[in-house]
Amino acid sequence: MTNPIASELITALDGRWADLRSEARDQLSADWMLAPTGLSVADHRALTTASLKTLAGEGFGRVGFPVAYGGERDYAASCVLFEMQALGDLSLLVKVGVQFGLFGGAVARLGTDRHHSAYLEDIMTAKLLGCFAMTEVGHGSNVQELETTATYDDSTHELVVNSPTPSATKTYIGNAAVDGRMAVVFAQLITREGDHGVHAVLMPIRDEGGAALPGVTIGDNGDKGGLPGVDNGTLAFDHVRVPKANLLNAFGDIDDDGNYVSDIDSAGRRFFTMLGTLVRGRVCVGGGSGAAAKKALTIAIRYGSTRRQFSAPGDDQEVVVLDYLAHQRVLLPRLAKSYALSFAQNAVTERLQELHGDVAPVLTADDPAAKERQEAQRELETRVAGLKAVTTWHAVDTIQACREACGGAGYMAENELTQMRSDVDVFATFEGDNTVLLQLTAKGLLTDYKEMWGDLDSAGMVGKIAAQLGGRIVERTARRAGIQRLVDTATGRDDDSATDSLPWAMSMFEQRADHALETLGNRLRKATKENAFDIFNKAQDHVLFAARAHIDRCVLDAALESHEAMADGAAKDLLGRVLTLYALSSIEADRAWFLEHGRISGSRSRAVTASVNELCAELRPQVLTLVDGFGIPDELITAPIAQL
Amino acid sequence: MTNPIASELITALDGRWADLRSEARDQLSADWMLAPTGLSVADHRALTTASLKTLAGEGFGRVGFPVAYGGERDYAASCVLFEMQALGDLSLLVKVGVQFGLFGGAVARLGTDRHHSAYLEDIMTAKLLGCFAMTEVGHGSNVQELETTATYDDSTHELVVNSPTPSATKTYIGNAAVDGRMAVVFAQLITREGDHGVHAVLMPIRDEGGAALPGVTIGDNGDKGGLPGVDNGTLAFDHVRVPKANLLNAFGDIDDDGNYVSDIDSAGRRFFTMLGTLVRGRVCVGGGSGAAAKKALTIAIRYGSTRRQFSAPGDDQEVVVLDYLAHQRVLLPRLAKSYALSFAQNAVTERLQELHGDVAPVLTADDPAAKERQEAQRELETRVAGLKAVTTWHAVDTIQACREACGGAGYMAENELTQMRSDVDVFATFEGDNTVLLQLTAKGLLTDYKEMWGDLDSAGMVGKIAAQLGGRIVERTARRAGIQRLVDTATGRDDDSATDSLPWAMSMFEQRADHALETLGNRLRKATKENAFDIFNKAQDHVLFAARAHIDRCVLDAALESHEAMADGAAKDLLGRVLTLYALSSIEADRAWFLEHGRISGSRSRAVTASVNELCAELRPQVLTLVDGFGIPDELITAPIAQL
Repeated sequence: MTNPIASELITALDGRWADLRSEARDQLSADWMLAPTGLSVADHRALTTASLKTLAGEGFGRVGFPVAYGGERDYAASCVLFEMQALGDLSLLVKVGVQFGLFGGAVARLGTDRHHSAYLEDIMTAKLLGCFAMTEVGHGSNVQELETTATYDDSTHELVVNSPTPSATKTYIGNAAVDGRMAVVFAQLITREGDHGVHAVLMPIRDEGGAALPGVTIGDNGDKGGLPGVDNGTLAFDHVRVPKANLLNAFGDIDDDGNYVSDIDSAGRRFFTMLGTLVRGRVCVGGGSGAAAKKALTIAIRYGSTRRQFSAPGDDQEVVVLDYLAHQRVLLPRLAKSYALSFAQNAVTERLQELHGDVAPVLTADDPAAKERQEAQRELETRVAGLKAVTTWHAVDTIQACREACGGAGYMAENELTQMRSDVDVFATFEGDNTVLLQLTAKGLLTDYKEMWGDLDSAGMVGKIAAQLGGRIVERTARRAGIQRLVDTATGRDDDSATDSLPWAMSMFEQRADHALETLGNRLRKATKENAFDIFNKAQDHVLFAARAHIDRCVLDAALESHEAMADGAAKDLLGRVLTLYALSSIEADRAWFLEHGRISGSRSRAVTASVNELCAELRPQVLTLVDGFGIPDELITAPIAQL
Repeated sequence: MTNPIASELITALDGRWADLRSEARDQLSADWMLAPTGLSVADHRALTTASLKTLAGEGFGRVGFPVAYGGERDYAASCVLFEMQALGDLSLLVKVGVQFGLFGGAVARLGTDRHHSAYLEDIMTAKLLGCFAMTEVGHGSNVQELETTATYDDSTHELVVNSPTPSATKTYIGNAAVDGRMAVVFAQLITREGDHGVHAVLMPIRDEGGAALPGVTIGDNGDKGGLPGVDNGTLAFDHVRVPKANLLNAFGDIDDDGNYVSDIDSAGRRFFTMLGTLVRGRVCVGGGSGAAAKKALTIAIRYGSTRRQFSAPGDDQEVVVLDYLAHQRVLLPRLAKSYALSFAQNAVTERLQELHGDVAPVLTADDPAAKERQEAQRELETRVAGLKAVTTWHAVDTIQACREACGGAGYMAENELTQMRSDVDVFATFEGDNTVLLQLTAKGLLTDYKEMWGDLDSAGMVGKIAAQLGGRIVERTARRAGIQRLVDTATGRDDDSATDSLPWAMSMFEQRADHALETLGNRLRKATKENAFDIFNKAQDHVLFAARAHIDRCVLDAALESHEAMADGAAKDLLGRVLTLYALSSIEADRAWFLEHGRISGSRSRAVTASVNELCAELRPQVLTLVDGFGIPDELITAPIAQL
């Protein structure tokens, strides 16, 4: 049924874990991947829990866990699986993410053998459901300042976990309101020597029967803007005691004499190293939201290919709505961006596997190999943070655009778009608020690993830049030779031609990213200790722009690399036009910047808009092939308007 | 409690119907205006129906109906009341709109005394609940081509209403699924003479007990993306007979001999005259969504004024998030636009009252006074269509931005933003799809009333422009002398200064609107009968831009007129800065256009961005006053995060 061009596109998008994607297409059954519309919150929660267990029963819970403890496949495969699961009910997806990714991932990555042996099997089979309890009422983004404490009691060899204030209450915690039996609780670790910064402690929170344990207060966040099947709740602890062994001790421990021990000296660096091991969560959220956007586009484009409204002169039949430029303008650039982002997602997933796949991060800072590796990890975290922001916003925007493009039909729950839209909404602010993440990306680009790592606040960053950066911009995009050649060919081209060429677009992406970062560095270098906040704050829009420009470049680079690797033919040609549309749409959206900075003339700027319109018309006949290229199993698309 | 500046702002925003707004603030009780979170659809519907009856019991249902039949206040007052009601549950708002505005409005405006005497009292008291059945499965935007037929049977003096195909089924009809007892059904009226175009027929659909009448098939649209309290459903008719008297006959009738009679010759013009009497619906939808945006901004700005995250150097306390430029950038330009749009809303409401308030539209096309009046009505419809599009999109965008600005807290249903966001979503595509409406605005600007009226399709329009427009652009913005003086003072200013001045901004708005329309006219004049669709289609993005630019100018004009009318003092100064922020933000968003067309230099373009940032900082200390200026009763804001 799938035409050969669509098959080739599927192969290109599938990338390294094609076998896993293919299996998932066969095995992720609509019977338990989807949820009916109109369930009550209680029923949706119950269904989601049941589906989670079904999914675990099929063995999907094992993907990404250490093989030594019963896990399957490699680490980053779990991100790929997550993308595929995002084609079903997103409540189930987030429940999966909470259970296997956040809770299970924290036990696997922050814990050691004693935790792995004791818990991983039950986690992978969903016998033990758990929480990842980081966010507090008072601290969502600035988690380094969490208020919850875990104080070591020398006399009993126990940790005493406590929520000292109402704002220390853990909140929005998935699996907390109903299902969780344990929680990885992030808390300031205090020994008789003092405060060692945020650590994770494995806390039982409910007994077998589901009752809260003594000292644990559990609340229910209740109704939310989406994800009705996820039981988000609150957790507060009143001096609850657990054995010292419950400390997840991969990066810091308390020895038998009650002394704190860690290979990492700085409390801040230690915390961000721990967070760094959790970068997979952001990879997953980006990939999942990107997959949801592709599903929405499939629905809207299929409908737009059949729906007719208003007649053209000399034609009895009304016009198919996708033949209108305005409709193409809404859907096709977003389709193109979805393609581009998918390749970028594959690239970070591969990089995640390379850096985090087999071993825990190297900790000895003096070793040159370790330094290089830390550098690479920071580069990955920088890119993942920004890509998560760009992709989740793309998903929110795209699903909304698809909903509107389907008119009243798009508003009917049976057509799937509204629930997806509501569910994906929070992806923009969880696993890192997008605005904060883009700032993290900019910071990662502007300063060195060691300098910024322990100190995420703006003062620390600005001070360090002022003192040490000296105008040097750290360029981190690893680019292969073929792509560089492409960019080089653009040099010296006539200014008002070739706006439809990818090399020209690439050089525009380069210039945008480089100049934005360079000028940002210049602005921030002027900061002194006294005016640091003010200087940084006034540049905040510049910071966000520079981060986005960097990510856009990474996206185009990754997409073009994958495109280059395809065999010559119709599919490669088609994808080339799609990526050109992506690139030119991005330039068009920022054309004010290019004009302000003398990078394009007014006439060329208008030519970009004209080219976007022409590409839309050119791609119009291929839209069904292009959505087939997303490779979404038909049984997972139930929207009546999307049935061709 | 309200400070004097906020009070003055409330007075300025309240405009002509200040007394009604003030009464509404006192009388719209949270007890029945709000809905708890987490209701099932069935419970929410039941609550909404009960609240509708309570509201009618308080007499609110009478506002805007003819006094002769028990109505109260003037016609456009109903729009003002609708705005105030939008501060409560939006399901109730839409139910109100369906019952009193669409159903009641159609009976009042399309019907005559026989319908008014029989039904209006029961409609105003919500004793008779009814539907406005226009949209069909096959036709949402292009309602002139509805398939439902109403065929006159000479022998029985009855109309036979029929849905000939599945796509003729009426859908998304409010009050249809559960409550409606009657429906105003739009259908092609057919007599032995032939087809007379779309007319409205009053059809009983359920008996007293709620069972569907014979021949009437009623369906339930079920779960939607929002508005859970509104019982949208489907209606299909299988040769259902009603007396001829059920024809709503204000614009066309069947006489006792079975002849069709109407003062309007053209079927098309007749239909659009009927639609024209329903322009109030679009005024209401714009106003309601604008009010919802203001409520969302109040919640997000109050929260942003107290929420702290991350610390600044040399400060123990974390920074209040609204002190961050990025946060200001999200909320303050939207706050400014909300102010500006409110004044534009007041202006169209006043104009509606002037033109539609007391009498039905004049129909005799040959009378010069009638011609002038038709001209004025078209100008109003043109502006209302565009303003509805701009305001509803502003609401969707703003409530979403507010949700994200509140992070995880914004996603909790108790904080009100998510339900508002879901509910208001459909405002962008109902009562006219926004994209279609903007095209209507552009068409209204480009061609004369008579020429385009009967023929909304692109061919008709383009053909007429080609033949008759001759490059003349019809300029319809009525502007008072004081405002024109303001614009005139901007002439001759140095290009790189005064970007913070309103007169300069106004002249930019002028140039944008004029040039966009002029060049659009030039493009479309090239159309011939053969290439008309293609020419029009390729210019569609230009059409949308020109429409938006025109509306932006109308908005700024209206806002500045209201500003001019204020007494000198702190409130007027503050509002002046708010409107400057609105104007500069709009110019900033379109700065690529201004650069491309040589209206501003690159350095001036960057100065606009800098001015927006400065204005954000300048307005920051006044934000709580500014949201108090919206005049939203505290009892209607229940979000825990918005309690100061």
